Amino acid sequence: MPADLTDFAAFAHRLADASGAAIMPHFRARLDVEDKGGKKGEKYDPVTIADQNAETAIRELIAADYPDHGILGEEHGHQTGTSPYSWVLDPIDGTRAFITGGPQWGTLIALNDGAAPVLGVLDQPFTGERWIGYGGRTELHARGTVTRLQTRACPTVKEAVISTTHPWGYFTEDEQAKFRKLDAAARMSRFGGDCYAYGLLAMGFMDAVIESALQPWDIQALIPIVEGAGGIVTSWAGGDAQDGGHVVASGDERLHAALLKLLA
Amino acid sequence: MPADLTDFAAFAHRLADASGAAIMPHFRARLDVEDKGGKKGEKYDPVTIADQNAETAIRELIAADYPDHGILGEEHGHQTGTSPYSWVLDPIDGTRAFITGGPQWGTLIALNDGAAPVLGVLDQPFTGERWIGYGGRTELHARGTVTRLQTRACPTVKEAVISTTHPWGYFTEDEQAKFRKLDAAARMSRFGGDCYAYGLLAMGFMDAVIESALQPWDIQALIPIVEGAGGIVTSWAGGDAQDGGHVVASGDERLHAALLKLLA
Repeated sequence: MPADLTDFAAFAHRLADASGAAIMPHFRARLDVEDKGGKKGEKYDPVTIADQNAETAIRELIAADYPDHGILGEEHGHQTGTSPYSWVLDPIDGTRAFITGGPQWGTLIALNDGAAPVLGVLDQPFTGERWIGYGGRTELHARGTVTRLQTRACPTVKEAVISTTHPWGYFTEDEQAKFRKLDAAARMSRFGGDCYAYGLLAMGFMDAVIESALQPWDIQALIPIVEGAGGIVTSWAGGDAQDGGHVVASGDERLHAALLKLLA
Repeated sequence: MPADLTDFAAFAHRLADASGAAIMPHFRARLDVEDKGGKKGEKYDPVTIADQNAETAIRELIAADYPDHGILGEEHGHQTGTSPYSWVLDPIDGTRAFITGGPQWGTLIALNDGAAPVLGVLDQPFTGERWIGYGGRTELHARGTVTRLQTRACPTVKEAVISTTHPWGYFTEDEQAKFRKLDAAARMSRFGGDCYAYGLLAMGFMDAVIESALQPWDIQALIPIVEGAGGIVTSWAGGDAQDGGHVVASGDERLHAALLKLLA
């Protein structure tokens, strides 16, 4: 792989370290009993403070080392660069998991080369897990170990464990009916996964994640992670998924083809 | 509280240590690539092996220290004791979370004094979290810290974060419709929680967990944990929940009363 990408991976680890440090003091902080970060008189809102502080920390590091790169972040908007590269950021993907104390949220950091995301990080600082995908490989860095990941074989919907974050929170009625039909055909469905489900897919413990109403920063980091482990990510229509919207990720291309038919 | 209960709590920590040690080598083990525990020629099934090994380890410790106590476990059945005390065990509650690699499963250990569960442990060895409730208090032991837990105030359904493990996997059609109605009235619903959701309830990050089709070992450990943090656990009809079935747990008794009306 190009030397650049290895450098960018080392830099992405630094970004994830910084975001984790900004977020963790606010994870599981109690809204009603503490005041850790809001302006005087403002109500303390842990997830908003954590999200903003993490994105600020990441933007500062990018501005210092790659001032010509663009940045697209959920919290602080779009900043155009003079380089084709841009960083696509969601400091806390899975806000609902975060505010209810669960570990299924994560920090998503993608590097887009102007055509597609070429590097992605999913960082979960509470469990101490970090997925990084780039150059056709995906690694899980967890508590001092590094493991190369590989999705599992799953040729049919019947054998598949499928997942989505919420059964009706993000789907239209028609989409709900489609998911329900898939669920009836599949081996098992899981909910509440948020971005963590894509990590489990890359590890070979789930077979597909099916979502809608995604933003670019919800999915760009996850594309190199899933693809680097041997999986595939597209829109429900089979097209490029980097702009978000309706997204399906699978660990096996045979399953993916079957899912696209059923989601069409 | 009686001295006995303090002794039993120390013993319950030993049981959870032993179960965690028996389970963790099999968590996230790959079915298809490894052979860690099955008999020769048998297919290796990580969750079954982990479940059985953990229950065996727990039963051996109970037999050694409290040979007169009864034991009711999911894996190895009921063993009547000569003492009124019995241990009610589910080594891996949340099998589906376990086999899909997620951290929402837990080991449930309850001590029943013959009338009701008086001590409960929820152990999550992957995240390093252990909830223990007894004598009217609940503590979270996590990574070297011990925190006394308190549920949060939430007087109405409108303000509540409610949770259940699966939107239709365990509910009848009528129960699904009830949960869907509750969801529409509540602030937010979360799925995929398994026993971990009760831990988040005790910590004050969720307001209610609503489930059906539970076994006694699915709920007995969680009753002292929720109640020791100030919450309440009953059947949907408002009766004793220790035998399982339809269970609702709330952090605030005003919310609980409102939920019982809607679930009736």
